[in-house]
Amino acid sequence: MVNYQFSSMATRLRRTEIRELLKLTRLPDTISFGGGLPDPAIFPYAAVEAAAERAIKENGRLALQYSPTEGEPFLKEQIAAFTERQGEKLSAEELLVVSSSQQGLDLLAKLFIDESAPIIIERPTYVGTIQAFRAFGADFHGVDMDDDGIIPDHLERTIIPLVDSGRKPRFIYLIPDFQNPSGRNLSLERRHEILRLASRYDLPIIEDSPYRELRFSGSLLPSLRSLDTEGRVIQLKTLSKIFCPGFRLGWIAAPPLVLEKLVMAKQGTDLCSSAYVSMVTAYLLLDHHVDRQITISRDLYERKAAVMLAALERCMPKVDGLNWSKPDGGMFLWLHLPEYMDTKAMLLEAVDERVAYVIGSCFYTDGSGRSEMRLNYSYPTEEQIVIGIERLARLVRKRMADKVPVRR
Amino acid sequence: MVNYQFSSMATRLRRTEIRELLKLTRLPDTISFGGGLPDPAIFPYAAVEAAAERAIKENGRLALQYSPTEGEPFLKEQIAAFTERQGEKLSAEELLVVSSSQQGLDLLAKLFIDESAPIIIERPTYVGTIQAFRAFGADFHGVDMDDDGIIPDHLERTIIPLVDSGRKPRFIYLIPDFQNPSGRNLSLERRHEILRLASRYDLPIIEDSPYRELRFSGSLLPSLRSLDTEGRVIQLKTLSKIFCPGFRLGWIAAPPLVLEKLVMAKQGTDLCSSAYVSMVTAYLLLDHHVDRQITISRDLYERKAAVMLAALERCMPKVDGLNWSKPDGGMFLWLHLPEYMDTKAMLLEAVDERVAYVIGSCFYTDGSGRSEMRLNYSYPTEEQIVIGIERLARLVRKRMADKVPVRR
Repeated sequence: MVNYQFSSMATRLRRTEIRELLKLTRLPDTISFGGGLPDPAIFPYAAVEAAAERAIKENGRLALQYSPTEGEPFLKEQIAAFTERQGEKLSAEELLVVSSSQQGLDLLAKLFIDESAPIIIERPTYVGTIQAFRAFGADFHGVDMDDDGIIPDHLERTIIPLVDSGRKPRFIYLIPDFQNPSGRNLSLERRHEILRLASRYDLPIIEDSPYRELRFSGSLLPSLRSLDTEGRVIQLKTLSKIFCPGFRLGWIAAPPLVLEKLVMAKQGTDLCSSAYVSMVTAYLLLDHHVDRQITISRDLYERKAAVMLAALERCMPKVDGLNWSKPDGGMFLWLHLPEYMDTKAMLLEAVDERVAYVIGSCFYTDGSGRSEMRLNYSYPTEEQIVIGIERLARLVRKRMADKVPVRR
Repeated sequence: MVNYQFSSMATRLRRTEIRELLKLTRLPDTISFGGGLPDPAIFPYAAVEAAAERAIKENGRLALQYSPTEGEPFLKEQIAAFTERQGEKLSAEELLVVSSSQQGLDLLAKLFIDESAPIIIERPTYVGTIQAFRAFGADFHGVDMDDDGIIPDHLERTIIPLVDSGRKPRFIYLIPDFQNPSGRNLSLERRHEILRLASRYDLPIIEDSPYRELRFSGSLLPSLRSLDTEGRVIQLKTLSKIFCPGFRLGWIAAPPLVLEKLVMAKQGTDLCSSAYVSMVTAYLLLDHHVDRQITISRDLYERKAAVMLAALERCMPKVDGLNWSKPDGGMFLWLHLPEYMDTKAMLLEAVDERVAYVIGSCFYTDGSGRSEMRLNYSYPTEEQIVIGIERLARLVRKRMADKVPVRR
C-alpha cells in the first residue's frame, strides 16, 4: 500500500452529488429531468460531417498539429464574426479559445482564487462553478435572487462587510441570462446597477453566458460585457448548449491584462485546445451552422418549456409554497416545494416512480435549497415531459398526504 | 483601470521563454530545430477523414454529447486493446481519458502539489512539466542523468536529506523513454533500481511516456508501470507524438485511489474530454491506424536522426566539451557546447543565420544548461536538417574564433 501525500486541494475535491445521483436516473424507463443536455434529435450531424471533411481537405496540416495557445486564428476570426452577428462587438484579439467553459472556470480560479479568498456568487448557482472554485479553496458569499435575477441591494450588503474587514472579494460571478439552475434572467435595469456596484467597489465581474442565445421571445438584453465601459467584465462562452457539448469548445473574452495571464495559465493546463475541433468548428461558424442551430434549439426548447409549464399547471396541487419559475429561455425550470418536503430524501422515491431531477442543495454552498429542485426540459421528449411531471406530481401529492415532515 | 487581486498562483505564472523565442524562429527561411512537432507530411489525413465520418454516422448521438468524465467507454476499450498490442497490460477501468498529457500534468499537480512541496525531477526535464508544476508552487529537486538516464545514486542522495528533514517528496517525475529534452533512454537495470528506491522510500512515480513507441532499433524496454508490483506508478500517455497533436488526446493509467481523485479533479477542470475527438480516435484505434502511424513515424524519424547525426559529425569542430547525444528513439538530440558558449546569447545570432533551437536553460529549474541546446529532428525535412546543422556549425566556429567568453 502506497502512502500518498495528497495536496490540500485534493482533500477539498469531492464527487458532486449530482453525478452520483444522476447514475440512478439512467435506469431504463426512468424519465430524467436531471442533467443539462441538449436534445440529440436536433444535432446537425450532416453539417458536422461536412465540416470535418473540409477541415482535413482544406486545412489538414493545421488541423492535426498543435495550435497556438491563444487559439487557432481562423477559429478566432469566425468566433468574432459570429459574436457580431449575435449583436455584440468582439475582436479576435480579445478572446482565448478554451476547451469548454468549465475550463474557463478552472483558468479563472487559477488566476484569482487563493485558499479562503472571498468570492461572490448567486444563490443558487451552477454546480460546476462551485466545484471548480471550491477546489481552489474559495470562500463563497451567496447573494439572493428574485424573478429579476440577483438583487443589487443584497449584493451591496454582501460586499460592504467584506471590504470593511479588508477582505475585498476577488470577483462577482454571475449567469445573467436564463440562469442555471433557476432559469431567471437578469433585468436590464439590474444589469446597469450591478455594473455600477462593481465599479463603486472596484470588483471584476465574471459573466458566464452559456444560454444567452436561447431566448424564447423578445430581443436579447445586452450582455454585461457589452455594457461595461471600464474593462471589468470577463465573459465565458461555450458551444455546448447552443450547438453541441461533444466539441468541448468555448472562449473567454477578457481585458488584455487578464487575457495575457489566462494564456499563461492555459499553457501549463493543456498547452492549447484541439486544432482539429477548432478547425471543424471554424467551418461550421463560417457557414452559419451555429446560428441556424440556435434558431432550431430555441424553437424546440420553447415548445418543451411550454409543455412542462402546462403539465405542472395541470398536475401539481395548488398549495402554499409550491411554485416554479417561468423561464423565457435556457434549459431549466426551478421548482419550490413546501418547506417540509426534502427533495434529496424524495429522490429515491422519485426514482422508484421512474422520474428524476437534480436536488436543490447541489446549487448552494450553504446547505440550503432542500425543498427545491431543478427540472431540465431540453433533453426529454415532449411525451416524456408530460408523463414525468405526472409522476412527479403524484409523488408530491403522496408526500402531502403522508405529511412526512423532514428534519432540516 | 481595474485593480485585480490576483492569486499567488497567478504571480508564479510566466510565459515560457521557449514560446517567446520560438516566435523568432517562425521567420521565413529560418530552419527550426525548436518545437517538438511531428512531421505533418506523414499525418494520416484520409484515415482521420474516414474515422470522422464513421464517428458521426455510427455513433453521432454519443459523439456530439457530453461523455462520462472517466472517458468515452468505446475509446477506453480501444486504448486498452492498443496498449495490449504494444505489449503492456491495461484494462479500461485503470485509465482516465485526458485532453492531452499536459492536462494529465495539471491534474496530477492538483492532486499532489502544495506551495513549497518537494518533488523530484530529472535534470534536464520537459519544459511543460516545469510550467505545470511551478504554477502550483512545487519545490523542484533535480537529479542528474547520464547516457543511461537518471542516476540512481544521485536520486537516493536527493531523497535522503528531504526525508530526514521531514519533507518527503510528493513523487518522482520521470520520462524514461527517449527523454525530452535529452533523448536518453533509461536502462533496464536502472528501471528496476528506480522502482526499488521508490519502494524503499515509499514514493509514487509519475512515468511520462510520450515517445516510448518511437524506438528506432531493438525491442521496447518494459515501462516502469509494467514492472511495478506495488501500484506506485502513475503513467501518462498521449497520441500527440505517435499520431497527431491536433486531437489533444491522452490518458492516465493509475492505481484506483489516485484514479478516483483524478476523476474528481477532472470534473472541475473540464467536465470531460471531447466525445467527438474520442469517438474519431476510437475508430482510428479500432482499425490499427495508430499502430501503423507508429511504424511510419519511427522509420522516418530514425532516418532524420541519422541525417542530423551525420551532419553534426561532418560539420561540427572536434573540440573538448562539444558533444551530443545519440538518440535511439524519440524526436530530440541534446547538444553540449564548450562551457564558454551561452546558447541563449547565441540564439539571436542563430536567428540571423536563419537557424533556431531551444536554449538549454529552459529545461532546468536551477538556471543551469547555459551551454546546452535541444535539437528537434522530427519536424524539419532532411534537406533542412543538413543546411540547418551547417549554419549552426558555422556559428559555433565563429564563436570559437571570437573566443567570446560569456559571463555565467
